[in-house]
Amino acid sequence: MQLTTFIQSGAPRLGLVDGDAVIDLNAAVPTVPADLRQALLAGIDLHAAGEQALASPAPRLPMAGLTLAPIVPEPGKIICLGLNYFDHAKEGGRDKPDYPWFFLRGASSLIAHGADGILPKVSERFDYEAELALVIGRRVPRHVSQDAAPDYVFGYACFNDMSVRDYQKRTPQWTIGKNFDGTGGFGPVLVTADALPRAAVGLKIEGRLNGEVMQQANTADMIWGVAETIALLSEVMTLEPGDVIIMGTPAGVGQARKPPVWMRAGDTFEVEIEGIGTLSNPIRAEA
Amino acid sequence: MQLTTFIQSGAPRLGLVDGDAVIDLNAAVPTVPADLRQALLAGIDLHAAGEQALASPAPRLPMAGLTLAPIVPEPGKIICLGLNYFDHAKEGGRDKPDYPWFFLRGASSLIAHGADGILPKVSERFDYEAELALVIGRRVPRHVSQDAAPDYVFGYACFNDMSVRDYQKRTPQWTIGKNFDGTGGFGPVLVTADALPRAAVGLKIEGRLNGEVMQQANTADMIWGVAETIALLSEVMTLEPGDVIIMGTPAGVGQARKPPVWMRAGDTFEVEIEGIGTLSNPIRAEA
Repeated sequence: MQLTTFIQSGAPRLGLVDGDAVIDLNAAVPTVPADLRQALLAGIDLHAAGEQALASPAPRLPMAGLTLAPIVPEPGKIICLGLNYFDHAKEGGRDKPDYPWFFLRGASSLIAHGADGILPKVSERFDYEAELALVIGRRVPRHVSQDAAPDYVFGYACFNDMSVRDYQKRTPQWTIGKNFDGTGGFGPVLVTADALPRAAVGLKIEGRLNGEVMQQANTADMIWGVAETIALLSEVMTLEPGDVIIMGTPAGVGQARKPPVWMRAGDTFEVEIEGIGTLSNPIRAEA
Repeated sequence: MQLTTFIQSGAPRLGLVDGDAVIDLNAAVPTVPADLRQALLAGIDLHAAGEQALASPAPRLPMAGLTLAPIVPEPGKIICLGLNYFDHAKEGGRDKPDYPWFFLRGASSLIAHGADGILPKVSERFDYEAELALVIGRRVPRHVSQDAAPDYVFGYACFNDMSVRDYQKRTPQWTIGKNFDGTGGFGPVLVTADALPRAAVGLKIEGRLNGEVMQQANTADMIWGVAETIALLSEVMTLEPGDVIIMGTPAGVGQARKPPVWMRAGDTFEVEIEGIGTLSNPIRAEA
């Protein structure tokens, strides 16, 4: 099953993807909240709701005509991993880390598929990072085992963890360089976990700048996979329905190239993950 | 004006402090959402609502009998500053930073006044940090001036930025050590900005472990004050109503002492800020 979030009358609406069209889930099944996080927090069986929606006469909205929103517009937490592909750690001159470099994004940094990534006024060092994102479906017990951890994932999506490199490196804390408005591309769709290999292992992931392949890897190359990451996080915190984890980027980022490649206004960056889809964001300068 | 958030029938309720009692604002003035962030996002005039509540016959609930919640139970963002008092940077062996060390907390780390701070199973290096917190009242324009910045603060509260030091230092990213469940004490009250000096400058701040003074400073000692911090953040991101900024801790933390002092089950840590109040959290071991 594939879900998306689109804008109608200024508000995000959860939609079921039906071929080239989208069914407004709340319109088809009124007990389903129009927000994915709220639906998951309410414990709604979205697979059953999806079946109901497909069988309903609810209108099919052509996807090409929709303005999308981030899959989860306001996650409780957005947890990101740095240096989770060894070749990316190496290109940055770093050893293989022995624990994930976790940082958080705020929801104000998120943008939808098709929305503009924003080159900030205060920097020209604007970089891309193709990543796999996951959305937690059910509250994860603290100290969950790696074996059980993937059961708590509702689904997966593409993410572009756009990074303002000079701000990222102003201090040892990367957070500020990862939280500019308009820098977290998230979409276009979420593919539910049942439609993918367990823990999303073995998927090709590619990042393309203006059509040119800049990053190419496989989710099997991650140092900490989905299961290990959820288990590690559960030692620390409660992962709640609608929380998002961004799994890190492979080699090929702009800052590691010689000469460095920075995204400029007019560029477009795409993140494609096998079995999930393609996220595309044009880049424009901050107004 | 002072506000608090308390639990009734399992849900947080925004309350107006009236001496030793609390008035349920939503019960007194039904147009006021029961959640501070939602009230601010809706643009409610909370000062006017407070006046109405005081004039209303709504019941006065003795504060001593209430179970509190974090002032803002689910902020959109919780932005923290590290090393914002030079004496604290020095005690950690660091130079005066030339940019704030920003990191984020997730809402799942927050606890109320009176709630237990949780000593994790996986660490014994559990430290305290007395801090000033602020809550944004209105959306801050990007690139706001330092002069205008304090106008966007709705109010101030005490915060204990409890830190799991070994996790904080497992990698250069502090985030994971700042996001354990049960480590962000926030309360008991919020004092609105109009009742304090502009930008909360010049307030004594003190941290006490089992009654013994461990940290003692003045908010005037911060390297980046409230105005500078909001202006810097506005270069990067949109600060929304209900977002929280935690302004950093002065010298005297447990890890910098010789020998180090770690919080243990049965301890109590208090954060007192002049004109704001005293936050108290007992410490217990994770179950």
